[in-house]
Amino acid sequence: MKIAVLPGDGIGPEIVAEAVKVLQALGPLFDLESAPVGGAAYDLTGHPLPPATLELAKNADAILFGAVGDWKYDALARELRPEQAILGLRKHLKLFANFRPAICYPELTAASSLKAEIVGGLDILIIRELNGDIYFGQPRGIRTSELPLFKGTREGFDTMHYSEPEVERIARVAFEAARKRNKKVCSVDKANVLETSQLWRDVMIRIAKEYPDIELSHMYVDNAAMQLVKAPKAFDVVVTGNLFGDILSDEAAMLTGSIGMLPSASLDKNNKGLYEPSHGSAPDIAGKGIANPLATILSAAMMLRYSLGMPEQADRVERAVQKVLSQGLRTADIYTEGTQKVTTVQMGDAVVAAL
Amino acid sequence: MKIAVLPGDGIGPEIVAEAVKVLQALGPLFDLESAPVGGAAYDLTGHPLPPATLELAKNADAILFGAVGDWKYDALARELRPEQAILGLRKHLKLFANFRPAICYPELTAASSLKAEIVGGLDILIIRELNGDIYFGQPRGIRTSELPLFKGTREGFDTMHYSEPEVERIARVAFEAARKRNKKVCSVDKANVLETSQLWRDVMIRIAKEYPDIELSHMYVDNAAMQLVKAPKAFDVVVTGNLFGDILSDEAAMLTGSIGMLPSASLDKNNKGLYEPSHGSAPDIAGKGIANPLATILSAAMMLRYSLGMPEQADRVERAVQKVLSQGLRTADIYTEGTQKVTTVQMGDAVVAAL
Ligand SMILES: CC(C)[C@H](C(=O)O)[C@@H](O)C(=O)O
Ligand SMILES: CC(C)[C@H](C(=O)O)[C@@H](O)C(=O)O
Repeated sequence: MKIAVLPGDGIGPEIVAEAVKVLQALGPLFDLESAPVGGAAYDLTGHPLPPATLELAKNADAILFGAVGDWKYDALARELRPEQAILGLRKHLKLFANFRPAICYPELTAASSLKAEIVGGLDILIIRELNGDIYFGQPRGIRTSELPLFKGTREGFDTMHYSEPEVERIARVAFEAARKRNKKVCSVDKANVLETSQLWRDVMIRIAKEYPDIELSHMYVDNAAMQLVKAPKAFDVVVTGNLFGDILSDEAAMLTGSIGMLPSASLDKNNKGLYEPSHGSAPDIAGKGIANPLATILSAAMMLRYSLGMPEQADRVERAVQKVLSQGLRTADIYTEGTQKVTTVQMGDAVVAAL
Repeated sequence: MKIAVLPGDGIGPEIVAEAVKVLQALGPLFDLESAPVGGAAYDLTGHPLPPATLELAKNADAILFGAVGDWKYDALARELRPEQAILGLRKHLKLFANFRPAICYPELTAASSLKAEIVGGLDILIIRELNGDIYFGQPRGIRTSELPLFKGTREGFDTMHYSEPEVERIARVAFEAARKRNKKVCSVDKANVLETSQLWRDVMIRIAKEYPDIELSHMYVDNAAMQLVKAPKAFDVVVTGNLFGDILSDEAAMLTGSIGMLPSASLDKNNKGLYEPSHGSAPDIAGKGIANPLATILSAAMMLRYSLGMPEQADRVERAVQKVLSQGLRTADIYTEGTQKVTTVQMGDAVVAAL
């Protein structure tokens, strides 16, 4: 099994190193090859997603991704910025289905800014479409306006866009996922304002007919942003477009109080996938050895399960993470009084020991 | 002073009646005229924003608005649905600046799903642009795709759009508002992905130069959705576009736990405005006499201050609301043990008595 390892920027290299350690501890099962991505790749090659990195990712069975981005690249033109690497990988590899679980670990409930009774035991799954929407829709740009009211001034514009087959395939992913869970899908859109959302909703309703065992509901995105705060446990699977998914999955992750614990998977139609922590590159704490590697280690577990067909190994890794939590080991982000503060490397070592 | 009173649907008529009672208790100062809007107007005239209602709103000095929407109109074509009334009023009356305070009242902190230390004392102001963005951008629609990959299938599309003058004017509104507060503006966009956001950010930076006393920061919308949950008190004024503002202002309102208390104002460039509660029409509790009228009463107070030039009367109304809260009176939505549960009408009467 060939795994492309793309550590990226900020804390990326530190946390990916621990996940690699865990994978290697499972035995000589993987052919791991690394390549630079994001700002690190820009520094080396002048491009955030160099052809060699893309090639490596294309030829691998799965991709372990750290994080990209650093303020020092803020002044670069958009197409050279680190974020373009992750957008490019999603698009070129047709990784259209993003799985973002929001789980509140019993040991970490106190770290949430929400009350324990609201968030304790939370286990919801946000499924975000990744290949369409306003992220890639054409036309887009900045130009001189021709509108009578604003003639001669500059205007910026982007196109939100979904076609039926794009919505169909993410709908099926969501319904299939719900089948393995509590059989509820909430589709989030803004169909009271947007035509794209109207099409989205129509297709969701049509595909739902193939899944009579699943309960489909619809919610406007503004209401979803509220209900996530008010009663997040009322959700099971949430399915939504690229833009709303970007916002809501981050909101949901933060509800748990332990975003340093949350993995994600971005899959193509054959379950090849890119696996990355839900959190970002956190350049402010990079190099200090204090970042939490558990989200990346849990992303590696998702990789074992979804892309590499090794569910027992996935279980082993997840149990090991559970064990270090029960042992009271905590990186700084999830530390509370009475627990033991450990470094990034110590946490990785503890997971390996617990395997 | 002429006030157009548009009660609308669901709990709209009940809560607006209480706000009207409060305005009338201030003395014979206002010429109040009512008209149907939303679903109620559709039932009567076949259109959610009949010409006579629009005329009345245009000729008034200010508009007191309840809420629109009910599931029973879900099957109507988009242009006939209740929501079109509020979108139409915003657009026709050029109400481009939406003020949505998110305030956590000391007496009601316990009603929040967030911990008291995170949300207690919260007082932030979200300023949402209301006349542009993907709400009104052209082209938009549902059509047969010409894209090679999806040829022959249906596709939905919408245009996100801002021109420079539109961003300039909302920027100035935000900087002016921050001047009267804690002198911080956080502009929220998605400039790492969207061209519209890039223009938005450029203009914010340029206009900020006219306000050297104000500290401007920028945040991506996904991060803003997280930071609102994690540390909402770090914000002062948040300024953002129509779509992101829709989502974030609702999220922020729900953080407080007392969305039934939060007013809003939508102003044109001359401070003529439409005033409405931040919450919706809540058809599930309509007609039961249990809705909280305080958000609408506080909206009337905002109207006195911003559009009618009566700041002392605004203060009086706000003090009266503060007083009924201190007296322990609560409608069902904000009721907790040890307080006194009252009906919509009793709450309105109590505010009048406290004036
Ligand atoms: C870095 C950025 C382009 C990206 C996105 O918006 O998709 C990120 O926020 C994410 O959610 O993975
Ligand atoms: C009813 C709807 C069209 C409206 C909006 O999206 O603007 C509402 O959510 C609001 O925020 O006032």
